[in-house]
Amino acid sequence: MEPGTARIAVDLLGGDDAPAVVVDGALRAIRVDPHLHLLLVGPPEVAGELIDALDPAQRARVTVRSVRVAVGMADHPTAARAHSTVRAAVAAVREGAADGLVSAGSTGATVTAAALGLGRWPGIRRPALAASLPTAAGRVVLLDVGGSLEPRVATLARHAVLGAAYATVAHAVEAPRVGLLSVGTEAGKGDRVRRLADTVLAAQALPCGARYAGLVEGYDVTLGARADVVVTDGFTGNVLLKAIEGAYAMAGGTPGVDGTPRAAALLGVGGTVVVCHGAARADDVASGIALAAHLRRRGAVDRVAALLAGTPPADTDLPLDTIDTEVTAP
Amino acid sequence: MEPGTARIAVDLLGGDDAPAVVVDGALRAIRVDPHLHLLLVGPPEVAGELIDALDPAQRARVTVRSVRVAVGMADHPTAARAHSTVRAAVAAVREGAADGLVSAGSTGATVTAAALGLGRWPGIRRPALAASLPTAAGRVVLLDVGGSLEPRVATLARHAVLGAAYATVAHAVEAPRVGLLSVGTEAGKGDRVRRLADTVLAAQALPCGARYAGLVEGYDVTLGARADVVVTDGFTGNVLLKAIEGAYAMAGGTPGVDGTPRAAALLGVGGTVVVCHGAARADDVASGIALAAHLRRRGAVDRVAALLAGTPPADTDLPLDTIDTEVTAP
Repeated sequence: MEPGTARIAVDLLGGDDAPAVVVDGALRAIRVDPHLHLLLVGPPEVAGELIDALDPAQRARVTVRSVRVAVGMADHPTAARAHSTVRAAVAAVREGAADGLVSAGSTGATVTAAALGLGRWPGIRRPALAASLPTAAGRVVLLDVGGSLEPRVATLARHAVLGAAYATVAHAVEAPRVGLLSVGTEAGKGDRVRRLADTVLAAQALPCGARYAGLVEGYDVTLGARADVVVTDGFTGNVLLKAIEGAYAMAGGTPGVDGTPRAAALLGVGGTVVVCHGAARADDVASGIALAAHLRRRGAVDRVAALLAGTPPADTDLPLDTIDTEVTAP
Repeated sequence: MEPGTARIAVDLLGGDDAPAVVVDGALRAIRVDPHLHLLLVGPPEVAGELIDALDPAQRARVTVRSVRVAVGMADHPTAARAHSTVRAAVAAVREGAADGLVSAGSTGATVTAAALGLGRWPGIRRPALAASLPTAAGRVVLLDVGGSLEPRVATLARHAVLGAAYATVAHAVEAPRVGLLSVGTEAGKGDRVRRLADTVLAAQALPCGARYAGLVEGYDVTLGARADVVVTDGFTGNVLLKAIEGAYAMAGGTPGVDGTPRAAALLGVGGTVVVCHGAARADDVASGIALAAHLRRRGAVDRVAALLAGTPPADTDLPLDTIDTEVTAP
């Protein structure tokens, strides 16, 4: 366990199976980390259920921010109700009542609430979500997994910088290898955005001694042989991450290489924000909380933001014309 | 074993580990299928090695089309040398010397050779590659996995028709459910192409009693709960397929739900063509050959082509304007 108190706000109503799995996950997290403090954000009766399950010393590390479900919202889907709790969790971070937050609610709602409530880093329009996957060769940071869905060369170049910084700061990877996800490893493989981005990334300065390792393939996300950081657009990364999780579920469980959290860090907003996916189980929530505490203790968000700000964009004279994606009637 | 002779041409030089794994895979295929005939396309000494390993009855089912590596090509990478063998295999199908072909060489080279040599179906510019994945709920047909890389609404709509026809004809799925891969299942989830395609697919006629099941997620490709056919662009499908294969390798082997071939069928050209990926092992080559024989015996290519031709495109009055994918300097 790393030293240092970490105060993490937990969105009790975020997630398909909230609040049960969130309560269970929060219980697990607080029991294994003696320096973790939790701010439970949601209905007081749900928070009370959690607190009742703790011993007095553990209870001293839990506080509650009561958010009642508005009249008329009780019959809405959990996802809709959770929007008010994630906004309250963001407010707690903004006010300094918590050092970071975790939500398994709608990713879109969390990203929007965090961007509005905590502000975005300079030059960031859409924050990125970085996931860390277990592989035979160690962790692979995959980004974006859902922050911005349209593939853009400039976004991919920024993800390369963010990913290199995040792998170093969050996972202590030295001189990370950064790969661009495509359909083959030879130059020229991929769609138009990828072929152009390959050239831009080769000219892109990277922080932390990172180097661009060229194009990588789907295998490299799960096997980890060629890269420590795999850069892609948020659409591809999101479907990839979920398909991999499904494959591990099919095969009888995620390989526990190093207890890699099944949660993603939001990069680009002014605070520590961790997103668990909607189908999160208690273990996922617990590891999301542990990830938020870890990022807080390493000062990860501020350090990654500083590394991004200190890394100039690629100085390229390529004709980066707008590329059309043809959308015509079938 | 299905009845009927199937004569399959095998590209001996296609694949990262060719010819060894191709020879081994061909041996396995011919030993388990007494009505399979193979036309070995490649250097005669490689074919001879294979033939020497067979008993006389098996040898009677093997013929050779000798393709010598051109002088000066011996030092080229296997992938480059294999282009001449895949072209010769295509020629064998065109001339009627084989009923179909299998290659583990470069997908691009195989698609190009097949399109040029066998012709394309009317209205098809880029053929699609359809993979069949094992899931807890049975096979899921994923397409495209690399035929056309740019996401286009019209292509996704055609893939829905192709996938429904293929699932019915090749795998005997009744009234297949067709899903569109996105980042969530609620309407409105996804990038611009997916959001537009969701509306178009809802209006798209589908053959074989198929119905559009709406948006699906990465999980559904591996777990199979929501759809029998998952439609996506070739870029996303390719990285997804390889990541899933890597995950199963990490987890200790692909779950053998029903011996689903780790090979993809090329849909849109005038002949039976099966592509194994470059990293194919002998088992993959053997299952690719078995898939080609299966498709031939079911008359799959002609039946899918006829179903596509008989299915009108969506009659939509949506404003299907060109959508720009922004590509600007980072």
